[in-house]
Amino acid sequence: MRRWGATSIEGEHPVNEKASPRTLAEIASYHAHIYYAGQPERRHAEWLRLRIAERFRVRLGNWRDEPVGPHQQAMYQVSFANELFATLVPWLMLNHGGLSILIHPNTTNPKRDHLIDPIWIGRPLGVNGEVLGDEDEAEEALEVNTEPTLGA
Amino acid sequence: MRRWGATSIEGEHPVNEKASPRTLAEIASYHAHIYYAGQPERRHAEWLRLRIAERFRVRLGNWRDEPVGPHQQAMYQVSFANELFATLVPWLMLNHGGLSILIHPNTTNPKRDHLIDPIWIGRPLGVNGEVLGDEDEAEEALEVNTEPTLGA
Repeated sequence: MRRWGATSIEGEHPVNEKASPRTLAEIASYHAHIYYAGQPERRHAEWLRLRIAERFRVRLGNWRDEPVGPHQQAMYQVSFANELFATLVPWLMLNHGGLSILIHPNTTNPKRDHLIDPIWIGRPLGVNGEVLGDEDEAEEALEVNTEPTLGA
Repeated sequence: MRRWGATSIEGEHPVNEKASPRTLAEIASYHAHIYYAGQPERRHAEWLRLRIAERFRVRLGNWRDEPVGPHQQAMYQVSFANELFATLVPWLMLNHGGLSILIHPNTTNPKRDHLIDPIWIGRPLGVNGEVLGDEDEAEEALEVNTEPTLGA
C-alpha cells in the first residue's frame, strides 16, 4: 500500500519525517487551467490566450464554456513542457488580471496533482477530485500549436 | 495616476484590454513563505527547511514563530533568485506536505506582489496588505546561506 493512502486528501504533513523527498523526475509536464465566469472575465481570458500564443510554445486547448471533467467552471487548458515553467508561470502571475488559474504537474497520480500539489494564481476554485484517478500514465506535454514570436 | 489605482485590491481584469502585458523584467527575485501552525506542521517545516538547504542555493530566513509584518501565521522566508524558480517551486509543490506556502515575486510594488500576483501551494492564508507599500525598490535575492550538495 502506498504511503499516500495513509494521509487525508487534504494533504497532511507526511507520516514519516524520515522519508526522502519526492523529486522533479516525477513531473512529465504541466497544465495551466485558465478559468473565467462572465463576459469581462472571458474577455480577459481571450486577451491572455492571444498573448500566450505570441510568447510561449504551448498547446492551447479548446474553449470549454461549460464545466468539464474535474473543473467546476468554464476554462481552457494550456499544456506545456517543464522547461517553460520558469517563464510561463511568472508571466501568468503578472498578467492573470484577477482570473483564477490552476497549474498542476502531470505525474502518475492525477488526483493528487489536481487536489494537493497544484499552485493557484488568484482565488482557488473547487475541483471535483472523484473523477480523477490516482494511478495513471504521466502525461507528456501535448503537441505545440502556437508559433510565438515575442519574448516574455 | 497608475492604472493599478483604478482596479480593486482583489485584482480585477484589466480595464484596458489593449494594454501590453507586464514582462518578466519586473521581477528582481522571489520569496517563498512557508507557514505552519502547531507542532506536526512545524516538524514538517523543519523537514522541508533541511531538505531545501541540501538542494537549493537560497537565503533561509529566521524562524518566525509569531506573526510578523503582513503574515498572520508563523512562518519562515526563503529568498531566491529567478533562476531557481523552475526547480524550487515544483519541488515545493511535490513536498509541501499540506503546509500553506506563499510564493511572490519581488517587483516595485510589494502590496500587489503579496496580495494579487502570488501563487499559493496548499490552502491560501490571509495577508495583511495594509502594512505593505505599493511603490518601493524591487528586492534582489538575499545573500545565499545554504551549501547544497544534492539534486532536486
